[in-house]
Amino acid sequence: MPVIDGVRFAAVEAGVKYAGRKDVMLAVCDPGTAVAGVFTRSATRAAPVLDCQAKLRRAAADTGAAILVNAGNANAFTGRNGVAATDAVVTAVADATGLPPARVFTASTGVIGEPLPKDRITRKIGDLVATLSPNAIGDAAEAIMTTDTYPKGAEAVCDVAGQSVTIAGIAKGSGMIAPDMATMLVYIFTDAQIGRDDLQALVSRLNDRTFNCITVDSDTSTSDTLLCAATGASGVDVTGSTAFSDALHSVMLDLAHQVVRDGEGATKFVEIAVTGAASDADAKTHGLSIANSPLVKTAIAGEDPNWGRIVMAVGKSGAAADRDTLSIRFGDVLVADRGWVSPNYEEADGAAHMTGDHIRIGVDIGIGTGSATVWTCDLTHGYISINADYRS
Amino acid sequence: MPVIDGVRFAAVEAGVKYAGRKDVMLAVCDPGTAVAGVFTRSATRAAPVLDCQAKLRRAAADTGAAILVNAGNANAFTGRNGVAATDAVVTAVADATGLPPARVFTASTGVIGEPLPKDRITRKIGDLVATLSPNAIGDAAEAIMTTDTYPKGAEAVCDVAGQSVTIAGIAKGSGMIAPDMATMLVYIFTDAQIGRDDLQALVSRLNDRTFNCITVDSDTSTSDTLLCAATGASGVDVTGSTAFSDALHSVMLDLAHQVVRDGEGATKFVEIAVTGAASDADAKTHGLSIANSPLVKTAIAGEDPNWGRIVMAVGKSGAAADRDTLSIRFGDVLVADRGWVSPNYEEADGAAHMTGDHIRIGVDIGIGTGSATVWTCDLTHGYISINADYRS
Repeated sequence: MPVIDGVRFAAVEAGVKYAGRKDVMLAVCDPGTAVAGVFTRSATRAAPVLDCQAKLRRAAADTGAAILVNAGNANAFTGRNGVAATDAVVTAVADATGLPPARVFTASTGVIGEPLPKDRITRKIGDLVATLSPNAIGDAAEAIMTTDTYPKGAEAVCDVAGQSVTIAGIAKGSGMIAPDMATMLVYIFTDAQIGRDDLQALVSRLNDRTFNCITVDSDTSTSDTLLCAATGASGVDVTGSTAFSDALHSVMLDLAHQVVRDGEGATKFVEIAVTGAASDADAKTHGLSIANSPLVKTAIAGEDPNWGRIVMAVGKSGAAADRDTLSIRFGDVLVADRGWVSPNYEEADGAAHMTGDHIRIGVDIGIGTGSATVWTCDLTHGYISINADYRS
Repeated sequence: MPVIDGVRFAAVEAGVKYAGRKDVMLAVCDPGTAVAGVFTRSATRAAPVLDCQAKLRRAAADTGAAILVNAGNANAFTGRNGVAATDAVVTAVADATGLPPARVFTASTGVIGEPLPKDRITRKIGDLVATLSPNAIGDAAEAIMTTDTYPKGAEAVCDVAGQSVTIAGIAKGSGMIAPDMATMLVYIFTDAQIGRDDLQALVSRLNDRTFNCITVDSDTSTSDTLLCAATGASGVDVTGSTAFSDALHSVMLDLAHQVVRDGEGATKFVEIAVTGAASDADAKTHGLSIANSPLVKTAIAGEDPNWGRIVMAVGKSGAAADRDTLSIRFGDVLVADRGWVSPNYEEADGAAHMTGDHIRIGVDIGIGTGSATVWTCDLTHGYISINADYRS
């Protein structure tokens, strides 16, 4: 992954829960860094999430900034103790880096409801600061994994008025993934120069089309966090740049797709493109209803072109639909045409598409011009195995 | 099951899809029968559902009535062909029974999107009418099964002003079961005397507390139908009777519980009682969010007292909650007490409750007086096996 001027990374084995692997990461950004973020909307969100949200709302000066993340314990539903643990970690990072606590952002991911062993983290912060390096973003990506089967990273370089701007992002997440509440843990860094408010507006807009359009299991974490830090080190002002917006979008979409591909137990990547809805919002509602349907997801796992279950999922979504204008495609195969099975459809053609590992489902509602694309994975025995035995 | 005066039943092997089993049932009620119903709210509901709804809206005179149901094919998403197939079946039943078509109600359950082989049904209607019997409700319960592993029936006798009234109901359904859209197929018969409007109001009210409080997989059928027929043959007017309302409620709740117990792949029956919510509606929203969470359902399958997933499901539901007033019980064991793990909680106690086959989860939101109870089952490898290979 590329170096982003103005950011250094470190990761360490702190033994928060896991043994024999890095489980805490630190990123430190130079002075002048703008930070934006989006977060879970869960009513039971974790202490570090509330802390980050409060800090972004207060909008301290764009000094340097630090991001510290631990895996193995979510510090969620841990009451006053959880707030105190977050404060202790923030204070330790601030002391070691010389940054104001208002510019230290933390996140915790893992089991809910157990006290965070904060001392295991704070005693390692000296080591983290001492080993900060511009080249260690890959170590950071590994340190934040939980049930992920691989670290997730994405990058882009774009040209803005003849000058080069670089973006690099990392993410974790493979279960408890559902949209409409921000994302899992995602950290994106760029050397672009952009004001904090412009960056926040851009990140929020792109988030709606990327992380908020994926779902693994319809469950939403109490810890979902996306932070984007723009160090300005390139000296290139990207305010209003379409090239930068497109590049950032590509990084966010790439990471979102990686989260879905690594969905717990997933064997297939599923793209659901909805067109002809009454509005874009309705199209997304239909798409997510299909993507979250256990019956659709198990049919895909079984390589069964069971388009009746798509009809069912459209019908139950709550968004406007008309049975007699609905058309469905599997890949390029027209399966259902305005309310009934297409006269030319052969089940063998639908079945052939389902044997692939990239399933494309096209649904035309046939009543308007709204459209949206969402992404998910299949629901398999692997998901049951992982989640019936995650904690015990 | 008891005889209901004024109703006769028959079932037959028609070979709609299945071989070697009864798959079409007919019930015929005497003149003077009031009929009420609730139906799926799916936007893609099947032709027979639309036909039943239109007939109940028009409210023809309380002549006799007939109910014909086939299993194996849902006649859903079958376009004009589906409407024609429903009409053909209705006409054949009307001709054979002498009833007006407006009093012939049909339903179809099974695969979506395939044309209904209506001739296989219509050619058997003579046999069905010829074999009608007051004692054959059990045969009817068997004929409407699809992925059900057992036929479902419930009964009650109540005393109204010193006179006896009898209720008997049958149901089918074990997948594509979600609330807020009526139920699966349920037929309830009683010899009570009650006006059509009073019966409809009572059935709608009780439905909200029974079938609309169960979920197996959050998916909603395009064919869900509940019909209740009151023949009046007992001569006992039950208008406003609490005894009758309680008895009908017990039959509906019993059938709803049977549907959940027979949920596809289910190994555990789960009762989720939510209290202390801002309103009863909020309590139901929290309850269904817990009941539909794949992570909660897999934890239960794994006998894991993973209360963190309950916190997650409350947080994502969209209804009002406060992390720091939330309490959770597994059975009688207080697990989480106002925002954090209870100081006396031992994981062994929670785990012991999870080994049973009737799991009781108590959630107190701690902010109001709203309450609701919902019922579901666990999510197991069995569900995946059944649904990854249902159609092909």
